Amino acid sequence: MGLSVGIYGGSGYAGVELVRLLSGHPEVGSLLVGSRGYAGCRAGEVYPQLGWDGEFVGPEALDAAELDVAFVAYPHGESAAVVPGLLERGIRLVVDLSADFRLPDAGMYGEWYGTEHPAPELLAEAHYGLPEVFGVAEGRLVANPGCYPTAAILALAPVVRRLRAGSVVVSALSGVSGAGAKPSAKTHFVSVNESAAAYGTPRHRHTPEIESALGAVGEIPAAVTFVPHLIPVTRGILETIVVDAPELPDAAEVLGWYGEDYAGWKFVSAAERYPEISHVANTNRVRLSAAADRRAGKLLLFAAVDNLLKGAAGAAVQNMNLALGYSEELGLEHLV
Amino acid sequence: MGLSVGIYGGSGYAGVELVRLLSGHPEVGSLLVGSRGYAGCRAGEVYPQLGWDGEFVGPEALDAAELDVAFVAYPHGESAAVVPGLLERGIRLVVDLSADFRLPDAGMYGEWYGTEHPAPELLAEAHYGLPEVFGVAEGRLVANPGCYPTAAILALAPVVRRLRAGSVVVSALSGVSGAGAKPSAKTHFVSVNESAAAYGTPRHRHTPEIESALGAVGEIPAAVTFVPHLIPVTRGILETIVVDAPELPDAAEVLGWYGEDYAGWKFVSAAERYPEISHVANTNRVRLSAAADRRAGKLLLFAAVDNLLKGAAGAAVQNMNLALGYSEELGLEHLV
Amino acid sequence: MGLSVGIYGGSGYAGVELVRLLSGHPEVGSLLVGSRGYAGCRAGEVYPQLGWDGEFVGPEALDAAELDVAFVAYPHGESAAVVPGLLERGIRLVVDLSADFRLPDAGMYGEWYGTEHPAPELLAEAHYGLPEVFGVAEGRLVANPGCYPTAAILALAPVVRRLRAGSVVVSALSGVSGAGAKPSAKTHFVSVNESAAAYGTPRHRHTPEIESALGAVGEIPAAVTFVPHLIPVTRGILETIVVDAPELPDAAEVLGWYGEDYAGWKFVSAAERYPEISHVANTNRVRLSAAADRRAGKLLLFAAVDNLLKGAAGAAVQNMNLALGYSEELGLEHLV
Amino acid sequence: MGLSVGIYGGSGYAGVELVRLLSGHPEVGSLLVGSRGYAGCRAGEVYPQLGWDGEFVGPEALDAAELDVAFVAYPHGESAAVVPGLLERGIRLVVDLSADFRLPDAGMYGEWYGTEHPAPELLAEAHYGLPEVFGVAEGRLVANPGCYPTAAILALAPVVRRLRAGSVVVSALSGVSGAGAKPSAKTHFVSVNESAAAYGTPRHRHTPEIESALGAVGEIPAAVTFVPHLIPVTRGILETIVVDAPELPDAAEVLGWYGEDYAGWKFVSAAERYPEISHVANTNRVRLSAAADRRAGKLLLFAAVDNLLKGAAGAAVQNMNLALGYSEELGLEHLV
Repeated sequence: MGLSVGIYGGSGYAGVELVRLLSGHPEVGSLLVGSRGYAGCRAGEVYPQLGWDGEFVGPEALDAAELDVAFVAYPHGESAAVVPGLLERGIRLVVDLSADFRLPDAGMYGEWYGTEHPAPELLAEAHYGLPEVFGVAEGRLVANPGCYPTAAILALAPVVRRLRAGSVVVSALSGVSGAGAKPSAKTHFVSVNESAAAYGTPRHRHTPEIESALGAVGEIPAAVTFVPHLIPVTRGILETIVVDAPELPDAAEVLGWYGEDYAGWKFVSAAERYPEISHVANTNRVRLSAAADRRAGKLLLFAAVDNLLKGAAGAAVQNMNLALGYSEELGLEHLV
Repeated sequence: MGLSVGIYGGSGYAGVELVRLLSGHPEVGSLLVGSRGYAGCRAGEVYPQLGWDGEFVGPEALDAAELDVAFVAYPHGESAAVVPGLLERGIRLVVDLSADFRLPDAGMYGEWYGTEHPAPELLAEAHYGLPEVFGVAEGRLVANPGCYPTAAILALAPVVRRLRAGSVVVSALSGVSGAGAKPSAKTHFVSVNESAAAYGTPRHRHTPEIESALGAVGEIPAAVTFVPHLIPVTRGILETIVVDAPELPDAAEVLGWYGEDYAGWKFVSAAERYPEISHVANTNRVRLSAAADRRAGKLLLFAAVDNLLKGAAGAAVQNMNLALGYSEELGLEHLV
Repeated sequence: MGLSVGIYGGSGYAGVELVRLLSGHPEVGSLLVGSRGYAGCRAGEVYPQLGWDGEFVGPEALDAAELDVAFVAYPHGESAAVVPGLLERGIRLVVDLSADFRLPDAGMYGEWYGTEHPAPELLAEAHYGLPEVFGVAEGRLVANPGCYPTAAILALAPVVRRLRAGSVVVSALSGVSGAGAKPSAKTHFVSVNESAAAYGTPRHRHTPEIESALGAVGEIPAAVTFVPHLIPVTRGILETIVVDAPELPDAAEVLGWYGEDYAGWKFVSAAERYPEISHVANTNRVRLSAAADRRAGKLLLFAAVDNLLKGAAGAAVQNMNLALGYSEELGLEHLV
Repeated sequence: MGLSVGIYGGSGYAGVELVRLLSGHPEVGSLLVGSRGYAGCRAGEVYPQLGWDGEFVGPEALDAAELDVAFVAYPHGESAAVVPGLLERGIRLVVDLSADFRLPDAGMYGEWYGTEHPAPELLAEAHYGLPEVFGVAEGRLVANPGCYPTAAILALAPVVRRLRAGSVVVSALSGVSGAGAKPSAKTHFVSVNESAAAYGTPRHRHTPEIESALGAVGEIPAAVTFVPHLIPVTRGILETIVVDAPELPDAAEVLGWYGEDYAGWKFVSAAERYPEISHVANTNRVRLSAAADRRAGKLLLFAAVDNLLKGAAGAAVQNMNLALGYSEELGLEHLV
C-alpha cells in the first residue's frame, strides 16, 4: 500500500528533486507528478538525469486523485490559490514549497510580494517547516522555508536566543539552480560563468522571512541586511553572517550552543572548520561554524546548505516524515 | 631605445601578466624576465597562452643588468630583501607587487606578517600606488596595492571622506588565481569547482592594508571586518561592503561622490547597475556602485576588479606610467 | 579621417567582439553599430564588459550612412538578404560573418540550410576568408569562415595537400558562446555546467564547409565525419582530427608542413605540445599539433581557436586589414 | 553481523566513493578504511563532504583484520603487490580497482605499464568485472574495469558481436577527478578551468584494455585509436566512438542490439537522445546512443558514465553484490 502522494509543479528544479526523493521513499506507495508544461511527457525524456520514468500529468489529474499528501511547488501567489482547495479535500498533509505561507501576516506579504494574499485565513494555521528551530507541525499545512532563510535562521537562532545582536548582515552566495529552470539572459551560461553578481538587495523577499523567524525566537534588530550573490555553481548556498555583538562570545562557545540546540537532529551539525558548498551539495545537510572578530567586535557565522535539498525538496520530505510520525531521515538516509 | 625593464618573479600569475603587458608597451625597449624556477626555459613552453616567447633568466642576470625600471613580484618578505639593493643601484623606479611596503610602519607589519620587516627604513619612502586616491609617486619606490584593498579602498575612500562610518564590513569573492600558481589541495580543480568557501577571516592580511589606507583619508572605526571567499572563477574580485551610516545618503549621492573624486581617472567608474566580475575581467577597470538599505540604516557599496590586472600587474604598469610621466593608460588602452 | 565602418548585427556575441576590436582599430575613423533589438540603447548598459559606450542604431541608420566597410553579423539567410544591397551601394568591402557565402554553390546551400539561397549570383564573387589557406580577397565580398571550419581547415589543408586521406573524423569541443546569446534550455547554466554533450552530428552545417574548402586544396574522401560537442567553457574550440593515412608521416614531418605553409602568417603556429583552449582563448591565434598513431595507422591532428576571435570577429578584422592593404595584425597586436 | 569489509586506499577519490557506498550498504556489518596518508585522522575532517565519520587506519590494521571482502584502490603496480597476500589469507572476495589485473597477459602489461607484472600467476584467475558483458565472477579476484574502457566496451561490444568494424576511434571527455586527488600543475583550477586538452594519446594505457575486452567478444581491427581529453567538470565521462562500418546499420537497429544484450541489467540503458554527462553524474548508470553517418559510412556511438561510480567505486560494489549473490543494485538503489 503506502502513501498516495501528489506533486503540483513537479517539473521545476525543486519539483524534480521531490520526484527523485519521493520515488525512492519506502512509505510512498503511489506518486502522481503534475506539470503544466510537460503533462503527457515521460519524465525520462525531459529529465534524463532523473531515475524516475513515469509520466507527468496535468493538475486536473492531481485534483481528481485521492491523495494522502500533496506537495505544491508553484511560484508564490499560485500556491496560495490551490492550497485551500487541497485542505478542503481533506488531504492529510500539504507541504507548500512556495513563499505563500511563510510570513506571519498578510500585510507583510502584501508589502514584499506586491500583491494581496490569496488565502490570508490560512496563515495562522501554517507551520513554518524548519523543525530544528520550530518543531514538528501539528496541523495539516507546512510552509517549507526558503533556501536562504534555512541557512540564516539555523545559524542565527541559537545566537539570538542567547545574546542581543546590535545588527545583522547576511551575505549569501547561491548556485544558479536557485534562479529556476526558466531560461533568461541572467541564467545563460555565458552570463554566469566566470562571473559573480550581487542582486535583489536591499529588498530581497527572503529578508522578512529571516526577520520574522528570528523575531519569534529572540530579540533582533528591527531589520536584517541581506545581500545575495549569484555565483557559477549549479547548486548550494554559502552564507557568511556578521553580527554586532557587544559581548562577543568565543567561537567555541557558539559551537557549543549549536551542539545543544540541534542535539538529536540528524541534518544539522557544526564544526570549527568553515563549511564549504561542496560539504553539503547533493545532501540534506546544514553545516555551521563561527568565529569571533575581536578587533571589530563582530561575531561571524557560517552556514552552507544545498538550496534544492535542505533548502527545498529535502526539507519538504523531512517535514512530511516528521508530520506523519516517521523518523526525519526516512528515505533520506543517503543524504545525511 | 626605450626603457630597460626587468621583472623579478616573472613566472607567477602576476608576473606573467606583467610580461604580457610590458612586452607590448610602446615605451619599453628591452625586457628581462626573471624566474627562479624556470630560468633558461622559453616562456612559450611554460605558458603557451602568453604571446611573448623570450627566455626566462635567473635573478643574477637581472642583478647584473642596467635597468631603468624593476618590477618585483616576489612573496612578502622576499621582496623587501631585494628592493633595497635595487634602489642602491640607482634604478629610476622600483614597483613592488608584494605586501612588503604597503603598511605604514614596521610594527604593524610584524604583527600581521609574523616576521620582522627586512627594510623598515624604506617604509616612509614607499608610495602606496593607488593613484586615484593617493596621487602619483614622487619617489622611486611604489608599493603596488593588494587586490582586495584596491577594490575596497576605491569604494570606501569617497565615502569615509564625507561621512563617519559606524562600522565597515567587507565581504569579498575572489577567483582562484588570487591563490597563486602553486598546486595545493586547496587549488585542485575538484576542491574549488562547484563550491565556495570563506577563508582567512578574521585575520586576513589585507585587513590592516584597508584600514591604514582609509585611516589616511577619513575617519573610520578602529577595525574593519574583512571576509574573503574563494569562488570557482579564474580571475576577478567582487566586493560587497556594508557601512553603518547614521545619516544614510542616497545611492545617487554616493555615485555623485565617485564621479567627483575619480573624475579624469580612466580606469575607475561608477554606475547604478551593480558591477559583476565579468564586467571587469581581463581589464584594468574598477567598477563601483552603491545602494541604501534604509530599513537597516546601512550603506551598501559594490566594487569589482580583475585581481591580476588592476589588482596587480595592470596597476603596476599604470603606476610606472604615472611615475615616469606618461599617460596612465599607455600600453593599457585595450584594458580601459 | 579614417575608415567609416558599420556593423549590422552588432549586439550578438560576435558583433560585440567586432565592436571591441574596431573601436580600438587605428584606421577606423567612425563606427556605426547596428542592433535590431537594442537600437537607441547605450552599449555600456547592455554590455558593461565592453569598453565602448556608443549607442546602438537601427539598421536604417546603417543603410543611410556612407560606409567604407560593412560587417554583417546576421543569422544565415538574413545576411544574404542585405549583402546585395550593400555591394550595390558601392561600399568598398563587405565582410559577412554568416554562413551565406561560404559554400561554393547554391544547391549545396539549399541541401544543408533547407532554404533557397537569397543571392546565388554572388556566390562566385565571394572570397572564403581564410587567408592562410586561400590568400587575400581581391573582390569586395568576404565570406568569413565558420568557427569549426577555421580550425579544421587550417589543421587539414597542409596534410591533404601532401597525402591522400582514407577518411577524416573531426571531433570538436566548443564553448557555449558558440551557441549564441539567445537564452534557451540548452544554454541555461544548469544544463551546461558539469556536463558535456555531442550535438548536431552527423548533419552539422559546418560539415560541407569543411569538405568544400579541403576539396579545393587537395584530394579528400567524399565525406568528412564531424562531431561537435558542447562543453562548459565560455569561449574556445578544441578539435582532434583523426585521418586514415596509409603512409603515415611522423608528427615532426607534419609540424614541418605547418611551418612551411603558414610561414609569415602571424596568427597560426604549430608545436609538439598539444594545444589547449586556454592557449588561444581571448586571442586571434590558431595553435596546431600532430601525432602519429602507428599501431592504428592514423594521423592525429590537434587545433585550438577562440570561436569568437579567430573563429569570427578577429578573422573578420584580419580579413578587412588584408583586403585594404594593411598588415594582417593591425589593431590585433595584443591578440597575436 | 553482516560482512566485514576493508578498503586499501580509502582516501583517494575512488576510495572515498567506496566509503560512501559501503558505509550505507545493508549487508556490510563492519567497515575498515585504510589510508597511508591519513591513518589516524577522522574521515569527516579530511572529507567533510563524506557522511561517514570513522577513522582512517593504516594498512597494517587491514592486514590484521578478519575480512570477508577487500577492495584495493591503490595505483597500478602497488595493487598487485598486496592482492596475492589477500587471496592467501582466504578472504572471500578481492575487488581490485587498479589496472593490475585487467589485461590478459603479463607481456602486454609490461609493454604498456613499463614494468614487470608483480603477480602474473593471478592474471588467468582474475575476472574482468564488467558483468553486463562478461558475466559474474566465479573466482575470488575481480579486476574492476577502467573508467574509459567501461563506457567504450559497453558501447562497442554489442556492435562488434554483430559486424566487423573497419576501424575504431574512441574520443573521450573526462572530468578532472579522473586525474586523481594529488595536486599538480595540471589539476590546478586555473589550468583546467575555461580550457580543454587532449592528453596521453596515442599511448594511453586504457587502449589495450579496450582492445583486449573487445577482442574477447568479437572481431575488431588490430588497434583502437583512443583520444582522451580533460574538460572542466568534476566528474563524468562522455565518449563518442566512430566505427568504420561497410554495411552501416540504422541507429534504431543498434539501439535494438543494446536492448537485447543489456536486457535485465539495471544500470545500462540506451535511447535515441544522445547521452550527456549530466544524465549520469552521481549515478551508477551507463547511457548509450547511436547514429549513422551515411554520407561517410561511419557508425557513431555515444556513451556516458560517472568515472567515480560506474567507472570505479559503483562498479566495484556492483561486482561485490553479484559475486556474493546479492542483486546487483543492493545499496545502489538511489544510483540506478
